Amino acid sequence: MTTQDTIEISAPAGDRVIDTGKTFDAPPARVFRAYVDPEQIPKWWGPAYLTTTIDALEPHHGGRWHFVQTDPDGNVHGFRGVFHDVIDDERITWTFEYEGAPGHISLESISFEPTADGGTRVSTHAVFQTVEARDAMMTAGAESGMREGYERLEALLSDG
Amino acid sequence: MTTQDTIEISAPAGDRVIDTGKTFDAPPARVFRAYVDPEQIPKWWGPAYLTTTIDALEPHHGGRWHFVQTDPDGNVHGFRGVFHDVIDDERITWTFEYEGAPGHISLESISFEPTADGGTRVSTHAVFQTVEARDAMMTAGAESGMREGYERLEALLSDG
Repeated sequence: MTTQDTIEISAPAGDRVIDTGKTFDAPPARVFRAYVDPEQIPKWWGPAYLTTTIDALEPHHGGRWHFVQTDPDGNVHGFRGVFHDVIDDERITWTFEYEGAPGHISLESISFEPTADGGTRVSTHAVFQTVEARDAMMTAGAESGMREGYERLEALLSDG
Repeated sequence: MTTQDTIEISAPAGDRVIDTGKTFDAPPARVFRAYVDPEQIPKWWGPAYLTTTIDALEPHHGGRWHFVQTDPDGNVHGFRGVFHDVIDDERITWTFEYEGAPGHISLESISFEPTADGGTRVSTHAVFQTVEARDAMMTAGAESGMREGYERLEALLSDG
């Protein structure tokens, strides 16, 4: 497996969803940890030019999360939500809200499935309340951010 | 306004949503309270033949909720989720999971808008992760349950 491994991002026209997927050369427990460890998330979550600060991360039913990203000019972008479910090494389901567009909330599940060769298939499925909110998220650069995030996560996992 | 006032329930074929709406002859603060008061919810939430017990109700960002309904034969149906947001007298956004179909989670917003004549327009917008899960919820009797719930809520509000 190499960094050329496929990243899939799908947002069908007229639907309310964004689906993504990527396979990693590390077991589910290791990949899962990168999603719930406040030390690791800033190393891969979104584009590298943004500095990510973990203000809250409570990975359990009812737990809150709040991440803040700062760009080189000092502009701040906050993201927040609550965890509906965290099943260790298997699935996270949380709500997601960009504080720059308050009130537009999505529900996302992140699944970690073991592959036959000891890797992990990560699949994300986000549903938005409206097609317009889904489209706005894509227009705002979600696709490139998710793509770079996956690439950075792959690099992090290959470091052990 | 009478109990003949229209109840709207919409679940367009092939989409992931259930939308409902009804106008009540009581101000938003009063109607909102019926949604977050553990004493009032059992008096109107769902069909009257079920006994609803409030196991958890924490109406704030990150708060949990867990309601249990028991039928006359002793069968138990649990529902649970977390609150993403609670804006007093305006909007509740929460996740929703029927424990009989674990892992099928929806995100629902409940809006309370004042009407010109002092009443409240309640609108709910629920998005499901899949069309199949949405359809299963409708097939399971959600529509009649929501309709009877609205009728019971109207009766409760008319009691003052």
